[in-house]
Amino acid sequence: MITYDPIPLEKIREAYNRIKEDVIRTPLVKMNYQNTSAEIYLKLENLQPVRSFKIRGANNAIKLLDKQSLEKGVWTVSAGNHAQGVAWTAQKLGIKCTIVLPENVPKTKLEKIHQMGAETVKVSHDKYLQIYWTRKHEGVDGTLVHAFSDLNVMAGAGTIGIEIFEDFPLVDTILIPWGGGGLTCGIASALRALKPDVKILACEVETGAPLTASFSSGKALSGVDYVPSFIDGISAPWVFPEMFELARELIDGTIVVSLDEVADAVRLLVERNCVVAEGAGAVSVAAALSGRAGLGNIVCIVSGGNIDPEKLVQILQGQTP
Amino acid sequence: MITYDPIPLEKIREAYNRIKEDVIRTPLVKMNYQNTSAEIYLKLENLQPVRSFKIRGANNAIKLLDKQSLEKGVWTVSAGNHAQGVAWTAQKLGIKCTIVLPENVPKTKLEKIHQMGAETVKVSHDKYLQIYWTRKHEGVDGTLVHAFSDLNVMAGAGTIGIEIFEDFPLVDTILIPWGGGGLTCGIASALRALKPDVKILACEVETGAPLTASFSSGKALSGVDYVPSFIDGISAPWVFPEMFELARELIDGTIVVSLDEVADAVRLLVERNCVVAEGAGAVSVAAALSGRAGLGNIVCIVSGGNIDPEKLVQILQGQTP
Repeated sequence: MITYDPIPLEKIREAYNRIKEDVIRTPLVKMNYQNTSAEIYLKLENLQPVRSFKIRGANNAIKLLDKQSLEKGVWTVSAGNHAQGVAWTAQKLGIKCTIVLPENVPKTKLEKIHQMGAETVKVSHDKYLQIYWTRKHEGVDGTLVHAFSDLNVMAGAGTIGIEIFEDFPLVDTILIPWGGGGLTCGIASALRALKPDVKILACEVETGAPLTASFSSGKALSGVDYVPSFIDGISAPWVFPEMFELARELIDGTIVVSLDEVADAVRLLVERNCVVAEGAGAVSVAAALSGRAGLGNIVCIVSGGNIDPEKLVQILQGQTP
Repeated sequence: MITYDPIPLEKIREAYNRIKEDVIRTPLVKMNYQNTSAEIYLKLENLQPVRSFKIRGANNAIKLLDKQSLEKGVWTVSAGNHAQGVAWTAQKLGIKCTIVLPENVPKTKLEKIHQMGAETVKVSHDKYLQIYWTRKHEGVDGTLVHAFSDLNVMAGAGTIGIEIFEDFPLVDTILIPWGGGGLTCGIASALRALKPDVKILACEVETGAPLTASFSSGKALSGVDYVPSFIDGISAPWVFPEMFELARELIDGTIVVSLDEVADAVRLLVERNCVVAEGAGAVSVAAALSGRAGLGNIVCIVSGGNIDPEKLVQILQGQTP
């Protein structure tokens, strides 16, 4: 079984220097809307080149490869933001890149990945999910850059924690969307070192909240109730055991929000702050606005902005897709 | 007649220090879309607290008032972004603020101004336009913070030029939406001092391009053809003579774009960079994408993001409102 310790701050600082040429030091802006006495701030990772934080981890992990590994190239299993982070970095470095995708991947996502010069391999949806666990796929060579269960990927994501602390040392609470857990555990590793008493909460959506269920039962669960929704960047029927154990060591708890709350948050971010978040990226904002994260200075990680224009239109018209 | 010299760099640096507590140092991000060989960058002023650059000039001008003037309060004539910049700053400093508006002002804009604690006075549309020129309105006291023809307001806007040069000294060309000219002349004052050979182009829309017409005829024109459109943050039938003379000294020319080009730019900014610009704020981006600004490193000022959600929906659906 894989086990991880929190990532040492020094490793995260090294990652920061490694990726800073390619990655935006994203702004931390105040939300122009407060329905609670909390002060809500937004860390705008949707402004990254691939419109999500995923570029940080992929960029760090790939740049750490030795010359021989770079020559063989990289691959990953992902249908979404992580695939773009890996493909973008591989293209920038001029190395070979293969993305393993589910056969039902939307055409627009496939096109984006091809535009970045990556090859793609389609597999059945079950097989696709399996490869996250088995970490191999016949016929695909090179180094796997796992979407979350990878120390270098987590160290890259952790650079967000350094930036938040430097820009806003008065932060009391951080709200982080929980997908596979790499973003949460990376940021939490940095902040536990920089400001040990900060409150760190992982955010999930009601249609699939495996971390919350795992915390309740005291062990990493698989087969948790899960219904696909417009919030397609996070949510799954399982938590990886190594991510659960690391999260248990690092964070204070979870908040579960509803689909309607997330749609409201996406709409408010457009209307009040002129930024477009995808559902997963607005889960943290929904949590802050719900009041369930408490008061004080709350920083919400707006993790990404890759949302279908049709779904954005529905949300702007007051609907929940 | 009012005449202005370019604003000394020292005044703009002082403005920068004066406003930095309230104003975001906005990010300069690369546009994730290039249809020309130019490299297009976005200066995201729509991320400011009032969703436009207007907070910079208003904040600087008001903070420069002496104690007695602060006690009497401030006023301005504006239905849009400048009104919010003035009202926001007045509320922050706890001083009285009056906004003179046209009687047909949309309810949402009126509400936003009232939420910021300002009083409002409605006048006819003709009277409203006149007050920009006469600079007075019976019954309204205190100091006028003019929307553009004011050295301190221009110095505040000029701080954008300092930020751009510090963040990206390799800039070749700057594209700036032209409304009254305060944004253009402020930024141009800073950049002519910092990087004299940078190309500075003011951007207008085909439905009302008085600066372009004035440049052609060699004098500041009034009564230029003008049709209202969804691009309501800029465009007028006139150029103020003092702004024309200053622009003639500072900038290299103009670019006129179509309504369709601006709608396309608004849509691309959402889809590729996750930011919402209003029509006026996307005129510069439309100019860059048109190819008419040439090649090299182009910085587009995305001046604001206050767009009606209904119009944004139309644009996302492929229409030009």
